[in-house]
Amino acid sequence: MHFASDNWAGAHPNIVRGLAEAAEGHAPAYGASELDKKVEHSFGEIFERDVAVFFVGTGTAANSLALASYSRPGGQIFCHPEAHVNMDECNAPEFFSGGAKLVPVAGSQGRMAPDALAAAIARFPPDVVHGGQPVAVTITQATEAGTVYSLDQIGAIGEVAHKAGLPLHMDGARFANALATLGATPAEMTWKRGVDILSFGGTKNGCWCAEALVLFDPGRAREMHYLRKRSAQLFSKSRFIAAQFDAYLRDGLWLELARHANAMASKLAAGLASTRGARLAWPTGSNEVFAILNNAKLRALRDQGAIFYDWPATAAIRDELAADETMIRLVTSYATTAREVDGFLSICTAE
Amino acid sequence: MHFASDNWAGAHPNIVRGLAEAAEGHAPAYGASELDKKVEHSFGEIFERDVAVFFVGTGTAANSLALASYSRPGGQIFCHPEAHVNMDECNAPEFFSGGAKLVPVAGSQGRMAPDALAAAIARFPPDVVHGGQPVAVTITQATEAGTVYSLDQIGAIGEVAHKAGLPLHMDGARFANALATLGATPAEMTWKRGVDILSFGGTKNGCWCAEALVLFDPGRAREMHYLRKRSAQLFSKSRFIAAQFDAYLRDGLWLELARHANAMASKLAAGLASTRGARLAWPTGSNEVFAILNNAKLRALRDQGAIFYDWPATAAIRDELAADETMIRLVTSYATTAREVDGFLSICTAE
Amino acid sequence: MHFASDNWAGAHPNIVRGLAEAAEGHAPAYGASELDKKVEHSFGEIFERDVAVFFVGTGTAANSLALASYSRPGGQIFCHPEAHVNMDECNAPEFFSGGAKLVPVAGSQGRMAPDALAAAIARFPPDVVHGGQPVAVTITQATEAGTVYSLDQIGAIGEVAHKAGLPLHMDGARFANALATLGATPAEMTWKRGVDILSFGGTKNGCWCAEALVLFDPGRAREMHYLRKRSAQLFSKSRFIAAQFDAYLRDGLWLELARHANAMASKLAAGLASTRGARLAWPTGSNEVFAILNNAKLRALRDQGAIFYDWPATAAIRDELAADETMIRLVTSYATTAREVDGFLSICTAE
Amino acid sequence: MHFASDNWAGAHPNIVRGLAEAAEGHAPAYGASELDKKVEHSFGEIFERDVAVFFVGTGTAANSLALASYSRPGGQIFCHPEAHVNMDECNAPEFFSGGAKLVPVAGSQGRMAPDALAAAIARFPPDVVHGGQPVAVTITQATEAGTVYSLDQIGAIGEVAHKAGLPLHMDGARFANALATLGATPAEMTWKRGVDILSFGGTKNGCWCAEALVLFDPGRAREMHYLRKRSAQLFSKSRFIAAQFDAYLRDGLWLELARHANAMASKLAAGLASTRGARLAWPTGSNEVFAILNNAKLRALRDQGAIFYDWPATAAIRDELAADETMIRLVTSYATTAREVDGFLSICTAE
Repeated sequence: MHFASDNWAGAHPNIVRGLAEAAEGHAPAYGASELDKKVEHSFGEIFERDVAVFFVGTGTAANSLALASYSRPGGQIFCHPEAHVNMDECNAPEFFSGGAKLVPVAGSQGRMAPDALAAAIARFPPDVVHGGQPVAVTITQATEAGTVYSLDQIGAIGEVAHKAGLPLHMDGARFANALATLGATPAEMTWKRGVDILSFGGTKNGCWCAEALVLFDPGRAREMHYLRKRSAQLFSKSRFIAAQFDAYLRDGLWLELARHANAMASKLAAGLASTRGARLAWPTGSNEVFAILNNAKLRALRDQGAIFYDWPATAAIRDELAADETMIRLVTSYATTAREVDGFLSICTAE
Repeated sequence: MHFASDNWAGAHPNIVRGLAEAAEGHAPAYGASELDKKVEHSFGEIFERDVAVFFVGTGTAANSLALASYSRPGGQIFCHPEAHVNMDECNAPEFFSGGAKLVPVAGSQGRMAPDALAAAIARFPPDVVHGGQPVAVTITQATEAGTVYSLDQIGAIGEVAHKAGLPLHMDGARFANALATLGATPAEMTWKRGVDILSFGGTKNGCWCAEALVLFDPGRAREMHYLRKRSAQLFSKSRFIAAQFDAYLRDGLWLELARHANAMASKLAAGLASTRGARLAWPTGSNEVFAILNNAKLRALRDQGAIFYDWPATAAIRDELAADETMIRLVTSYATTAREVDGFLSICTAE
Repeated sequence: MHFASDNWAGAHPNIVRGLAEAAEGHAPAYGASELDKKVEHSFGEIFERDVAVFFVGTGTAANSLALASYSRPGGQIFCHPEAHVNMDECNAPEFFSGGAKLVPVAGSQGRMAPDALAAAIARFPPDVVHGGQPVAVTITQATEAGTVYSLDQIGAIGEVAHKAGLPLHMDGARFANALATLGATPAEMTWKRGVDILSFGGTKNGCWCAEALVLFDPGRAREMHYLRKRSAQLFSKSRFIAAQFDAYLRDGLWLELARHANAMASKLAAGLASTRGARLAWPTGSNEVFAILNNAKLRALRDQGAIFYDWPATAAIRDELAADETMIRLVTSYATTAREVDGFLSICTAE
Repeated sequence: MHFASDNWAGAHPNIVRGLAEAAEGHAPAYGASELDKKVEHSFGEIFERDVAVFFVGTGTAANSLALASYSRPGGQIFCHPEAHVNMDECNAPEFFSGGAKLVPVAGSQGRMAPDALAAAIARFPPDVVHGGQPVAVTITQATEAGTVYSLDQIGAIGEVAHKAGLPLHMDGARFANALATLGATPAEMTWKRGVDILSFGGTKNGCWCAEALVLFDPGRAREMHYLRKRSAQLFSKSRFIAAQFDAYLRDGLWLELARHANAMASKLAAGLASTRGARLAWPTGSNEVFAILNNAKLRALRDQGAIFYDWPATAAIRDELAADETMIRLVTSYATTAREVDGFLSICTAE
């Protein structure tokens, strides 16, 4: 009963097969192979426009390069307080950008509020040098709270950003999960709503190591080549990422895996919502379930082998917690089985 | 006839199999899995002492993190002029270290001369702040010229470095090839000769993507954890590197592959040395052959499908080049076949 | 009626005279002159212990160097949300430190609360690499709210910091003003209460340009020399700062000037507190007065030549503001005259 | 007999008087005062075009900001091997630029050779990411060898730079001295010959601390404001620099002082050239004399109170040095007297 994280899973058999097939023969290094080009082309088809694609090793690298590419001296980057870039990347965005500052912008359930964003940006008037200058806005889709931004919500953020002359970055570590939830096209969830640059994650959804930076403005590709190499993220055998993405994007595997992970999360959420001594912290929008459980149940679950993390409650949740309750996070993945979910729920419902 | 680079090859079947075997099941992320620990233990056995091991994505990352971990403000890092860190890493060492300077120290055939090193260090007297302060020495083994440092030569460099209070870093992108050439143990070629930190490369020798930073002073591991994460080099599914190294190090596969690549290079070198209109630029010590060929021969080779790079001649070589001659680099790998070498040589010898 | 800022004033005649006296003759550059050494010695006497002193050009430089000197990869620096380092230095601390993050720690009236500090530090458990690592605590004395920390309050912060193994930095841009308010010795207000490194400002209190970094651990001086030079803050004619400090510290000029500025602020505060349509935002502890005034009065003041800034109200103040009220900041300096204050107050009290 | 450096001198009386006159009254901080604007206007007049002027604290700051403002990831900056930016700034240019590399380009007597520059740039073909990308060219006028570039020589460098799309920076730490030597206008020695950005030094020529960055493309000023503040180089009482420059530029004082220093150097050089046991290392073009003296003479000079530095001989000079000879550097300044020079020479000529 593995619900610790989607990155505790291994790799989907198709990904492994893709790597095996690409392992033979020789091909130009550093992204110049036919397979690299084919995959870049696939991204263009999926996003219905010319894009520049840069493979990198980690989601943190994708996010940090994206933000660094738009940063300038005294750069202020607006994000949700719980954003991965703000909480979990050990200052990589600050480092890559030469010292940008991440400015937290509030919003409920992991979603930045457009009004709060506009107000935060307004605190940095042009040509008052002391506070620095706004340089970018970043959101996470699906969010760190397991929710998703609707297309309209993304559009509203994009509008505020662009009105202030700022680019919008999307951290899509769980891009496929969000897409599956919304039933939207990749184009609709990104550039059609104002997203300028995207961290496209494959690792959490069945790849070994497949992250890409997608630039909707290919004119910025030239500098990104140097930025990526300077950051030690240019792989020599770049094919090993291309091969994973090739398998991942083929025949809709990526969306199929995301739909499965989401379905497992929905099943978990539905089960918990109807269990006495358990409730959801907020609605489940992707493959992460945040729930509040009785501590006795948590002990029982862990005693019987369920693996998951306690999660720091937000201030709003903290006020609602009873003394013997804890907030937890449950993450499903392509590899989660209905049996695992049923097992978890049956322990929950047992008295 | 692929001699462009050892990173044009794919992955050895054992590596692919290792990845496939590790793909199932769940395991803690970020380097905490059993497999990660097992591989760290293997490194300890191979090097005959406690080491701290950090997987990273590229050789550039390993080198840059190693040097950054020892750098300080105004840091001067001593390297051979042709060193990969100096010529081919797009300032990644400078960036990771917050602006260290790479100070070229001359030496023939890719090997830094200990005397020149001592003289270069002496140019930075303690407490003269303007010029900065020496912080590290780095050498490449096998070198960028395809030669290797002997154990004594490494020891001599290590002695100069340590006498000046400086750590010695070894860029071991082709570590296995050098080891196979010397017939030494990993311990003998590193910490027993003064090496403090090692970039241990697997990618060029049959892995997809397997690079490790090996710290012979495990007391420095704590800071390296933050340094690596801050540089976006901490993989979530770290197992995908561990699995490759597990296969790579098992039953001596790594040395076997290196010996094969070296043998192919020796065969090439021997053939060229005895061919009219061709000669070696210098003796071949690993899996890279630097040769000087008649341009007509080069055209014939390329016309018949041989792939390799022209290489910028050093000043010494340039003086020896005839007008119709060019210096080239030929790289062999685990995947090079004797048939490829024979094919290449037969074109060379044909009139 | 100049109340915009203490840095709108020029330089005290003694400072000018000091510069004139030092202008003749020759002396070793880069801080090696007799005058430089004499002033360093004066600092030692004033602080009653061995200190290392580094002259720099701006308070931002002093703060940024102090924090950078203690930072490490993924560094988290704890400060008050309104801290100058956080709000007004255009990311210089982030830049100098290679990407540290400033973590806001709440507290009323510009003073960080020790409990909140302990809680903030606890959010970064050792060896959880994702969030980074705590590296320093910084407070401002006098604070950005014009208040001062009592000696006990400094001690309490110092205790929390040291218990967590963190150094305590004090931004003393208005150090003399705070000292004058507390009637304490420099030693009592710094290292005797746990301060490890101090930005000692002279510019706001009658110098042209005189800022010093004071290290209570002189063992850290060696690295600071390189750090300062690398940051372009090593002045060749360092005497021009030494001469200012020499005059500043002689015969207690610095405290005399601070007492005057404080007295002018007290007078202003007392006057406003007893004026209808005006009130203090909080008690005045140094040479800055934060007051809430009727907008009609503000117009009258400005019409008659008073110069001062509106100031963004904190959330707590905002709730108390009437629709026709504004919060303002009034800063006094060594050059403020009782006549200016009287003029200001008489406009205020006029109907 | 002070010949150690022009930065061992103090400040010219006019500079001191300027500071004293500006010391009274209040004025907007951070460069917004009338005096700041007046001086910026003076620069425009002197350079016969619109310029943007940024005061900074040190020549190292001016150089580092200039180069950083043009740098990009993997940036290669071309300079003479002996350039101050390369040898004496403790990696400040590397730090400010986030890791640019200084690429030495040879040339005799401190002057970069245009052909060598073109060849050095050509080593970085567009879109080969490994080696990084050229971003700027920098020259020093007067040079570190005490020579000056002729206008044509500057123009030739500018042409090579611009043809490659690179900006040309001039380190004018001794700008006035070079100008006095050439008898050219400031415009002729800079933008009319291709200089895009200039470090304009006043400190070595009679100011206490007056350095300015002059942008011939004022469109780049907006970003420079943030870059300067982020680097802790924005002075609050900016007037203290403005007042110095105001006095410095008034009635041609700056050129008068430079002419004096140059004349003293010429006198020294002429004297040494005609002295047995002494000779010039190369012709003297500004206020620095590089000479080769008999060691016995050097001892006599020092015994009788002359102060100057031994100087590391270039390779070419080293070959010419007799066993009992040493190369030295003698620097004159606005404060050097003919009596000092005569005293020095009389010791030299004594047997």
